[in-house]
Amino acid sequence: MSWKIKVNQNIVEMEYAVRGPIPQRAMVLRKQGMKTIPCNIGNPQALGQKPITFYRQVLGLLENTELISRERNLNNLSTIDGIELISEDVLEYCENFLSKMETGMGAYTDSKGPLFIRENIAKYIDKRDGVNSEIGVPANPDNIFMTDGASEGAKNILELLITNENDGIMIPIPQYPLYSATIKRCGGVQVNYYPNEDDDWSLNREILDDSYKNAINNGVDLKAIVVINPANPTGAILDEQSIREVVSFANDNNLAIIADEVYQENLYGGEFISFAEAIRGTDIPLFSLHSTSKGFYGECGHRGGYLEVRNPPKVYGFDIPFVDVLFKQASVNLCSNTVGQAMVYMMVTPPLNGTTSSLLFNSEKENILNELHEKALIIKDAFTQMDGVECFGRIGAMYLFPRLNKIPAETTDFDYCMNLLKTTGLTTVNGSGFGQKSGTHHLRIAFLPPKDMLQEVLPQWIKFHNEYVR
Amino acid sequence: MSWKIKVNQNIVEMEYAVRGPIPQRAMVLRKQGMKTIPCNIGNPQALGQKPITFYRQVLGLLENTELISRERNLNNLSTIDGIELISEDVLEYCENFLSKMETGMGAYTDSKGPLFIRENIAKYIDKRDGVNSEIGVPANPDNIFMTDGASEGAKNILELLITNENDGIMIPIPQYPLYSATIKRCGGVQVNYYPNEDDDWSLNREILDDSYKNAINNGVDLKAIVVINPANPTGAILDEQSIREVVSFANDNNLAIIADEVYQENLYGGEFISFAEAIRGTDIPLFSLHSTSKGFYGECGHRGGYLEVRNPPKVYGFDIPFVDVLFKQASVNLCSNTVGQAMVYMMVTPPLNGTTSSLLFNSEKENILNELHEKALIIKDAFTQMDGVECFGRIGAMYLFPRLNKIPAETTDFDYCMNLLKTTGLTTVNGSGFGQKSGTHHLRIAFLPPKDMLQEVLPQWIKFHNEYVR
Repeated sequence: MSWKIKVNQNIVEMEYAVRGPIPQRAMVLRKQGMKTIPCNIGNPQALGQKPITFYRQVLGLLENTELISRERNLNNLSTIDGIELISEDVLEYCENFLSKMETGMGAYTDSKGPLFIRENIAKYIDKRDGVNSEIGVPANPDNIFMTDGASEGAKNILELLITNENDGIMIPIPQYPLYSATIKRCGGVQVNYYPNEDDDWSLNREILDDSYKNAINNGVDLKAIVVINPANPTGAILDEQSIREVVSFANDNNLAIIADEVYQENLYGGEFISFAEAIRGTDIPLFSLHSTSKGFYGECGHRGGYLEVRNPPKVYGFDIPFVDVLFKQASVNLCSNTVGQAMVYMMVTPPLNGTTSSLLFNSEKENILNELHEKALIIKDAFTQMDGVECFGRIGAMYLFPRLNKIPAETTDFDYCMNLLKTTGLTTVNGSGFGQKSGTHHLRIAFLPPKDMLQEVLPQWIKFHNEYVR
Repeated sequence: MSWKIKVNQNIVEMEYAVRGPIPQRAMVLRKQGMKTIPCNIGNPQALGQKPITFYRQVLGLLENTELISRERNLNNLSTIDGIELISEDVLEYCENFLSKMETGMGAYTDSKGPLFIRENIAKYIDKRDGVNSEIGVPANPDNIFMTDGASEGAKNILELLITNENDGIMIPIPQYPLYSATIKRCGGVQVNYYPNEDDDWSLNREILDDSYKNAINNGVDLKAIVVINPANPTGAILDEQSIREVVSFANDNNLAIIADEVYQENLYGGEFISFAEAIRGTDIPLFSLHSTSKGFYGECGHRGGYLEVRNPPKVYGFDIPFVDVLFKQASVNLCSNTVGQAMVYMMVTPPLNGTTSSLLFNSEKENILNELHEKALIIKDAFTQMDGVECFGRIGAMYLFPRLNKIPAETTDFDYCMNLLKTTGLTTVNGSGFGQKSGTHHLRIAFLPPKDMLQEVLPQWIKFHNEYVR
């Protein structure tokens, strides 16, 4: 007998280009012996970025706590030659962590994550946003939910906000396909808005209003607007004026803001303004996301992240606080993974200045961020040698999103990327995988490969490009 | 202005007693200084169970790989007194793992998890089920999906199978509330079936047919049957006859089987028969779940798990293989956490017999399982001294689910558990939190507290009970 099962159509129809046909083709080519360069995803350690020493020293000791006292014994033996030891401040950092993480790394934690970590996240947010006794409202640890990466937080919020097939979520185009896929999965309406590419992907009220009116005219009930800053896939850092426009637009139209701020430490050409700071003085419900997968640490595999809720709204029709509903949702999953939680703790609580490990930590941080910037500039420079390629935006995140103005008629950027892959091994993602203004063509490249790899592949790309578009 | 947002009603209405009002009350009491004993959840390390040494030695080295060569150097220095070293076989185990996990612990992996781990999971399954060249069909690594704990796999499958509000999933009553909550969240119909408590929670065709007919009469379109073996919350091990009944019932009615087998190594009074083995020779689609949170390891915090698909069905109306839809769903989440993945690898690939670490590993394993059994028996024995308390089933998992035959009229098992908590600090979960036959009352207790803690609290419980029911 042959079984046939009807499955959730939304999931069948969902698209996720970042892991779609091009990277899947790359996998096949790799198995056939071709050298490919995975720039389809922001996965720094897959391209040779070394983990931050301090983070891994701490994680190693948290997993095997017996090593802490042993390490101290080793430190006290002056006779060992040629054995590099872990400095005392790391041991103390671990002991402090474990004294608060009473049940260790192997137990389920509170569904929201351990309180002491959420308290430290709140302090980190306040410090970032310059909150003090006179300015701003402190972050509330009770409104912080630790998650497995940022994706889980985004999915939970969308699932909660989308109540029927008329509920709409505004997303920027181009966007990170987590949003389109999750809106699809939850059965809601994806409402596009279009940042102005030629003005460095900026936003203004007209852009937002156009999208809003369109949706309302189609009978859509708009619930929230998603902003990704620094942006993914464009890598562009949103300027202050654009952020102010989003806030006043959301305020005027009763929309919650979902701020994907996972690239907040990846800035190479501008400053970061958080939405927590930007909504100050308003009642706009804000859901902001952060993660340990990006920044200078790039610890993607550890799946650390958090969701912060500001101005939690009331729940219509039920006598239950909004964060309690989120808590219930988190409870069913029991808790996020403890190593990811420890990574988040370290992200918000770096080694103290003046300690032995802070010196190495700071230099590793600076080197990684400088190198990322250099690599972005090297790639951007190559674009100038490609016929009809333009790239906009103040550089942030880990991506460039060049516009391909001259690809052959009747072809798509998908064809371009597939041919680029076959010719050079460079694995990128076609612009259409993120959405783009009709009639335009792009690709996204993560600026992560080592410089020598770039120096080898970029001339090949330039050659490929200029022949392809001729 | 006061914001009000309509939120997903299914999530507001979802219930999850394991982290519900009783444990929440316990948290308040703990903050007030009361000593509470968290038996509401299978969280062994929160109750003092020590991690398996081998697992943590490996995880520590995988996180901080520089320690591997350093450790070897230390091993070669014969002059170090009083410093316990990590044995060579552990170092080799790590090197072997890292040689296959090419991008280390800090990179996203394939969405399904690294292929070499899935290959080892397949071998583990085949060995467990006695598959060889003559018997059975080998597990297919391509049909294995690594997940953050087992919950993620269960949620993904239910989300995929429930396509509209008429789609029903059969679940045992009592059940682990992940299932009722997720069916609710996905907007499907929960269809109850009732294992026979007085016959050690066994199943027969009549029980299953009753439930089926009921559902059909109500216009429900049944998609799958969930079986939890060893069971949660009852802890009972399902006997072979019951398993055969489920298989023939599913086969006759075109139902997929979702087998929650996370307690497959927690057996103290019977053998485990996997559904992969039981469906041999049929085409029944099977989704079986396993996790690193239970067994003798109890590494709940690390959120390791996997979902194995057998006999993947065809997708009705679409030309796409079933596992490709699951893959898409997994892709949006990028990947499960790498430390959980490493835990799964270790679960399915224990240290080789004859190695230095296997001796300690095997004795730790035996001690933990023996002690769990002893503790279950100590608690079960206490029930004999409680008026009107009966407890059925061959002991498995980490739970006992005694029936309270004599609680005062007009009271519930929720009242009982709340009073038990207030009087003794014992945090249990009321039977109604899992569902139970109408008119019966139960509670679930995880048999995890250390023996001395049990010896202290059980007499208090007996005293409380006999006064409460008098």
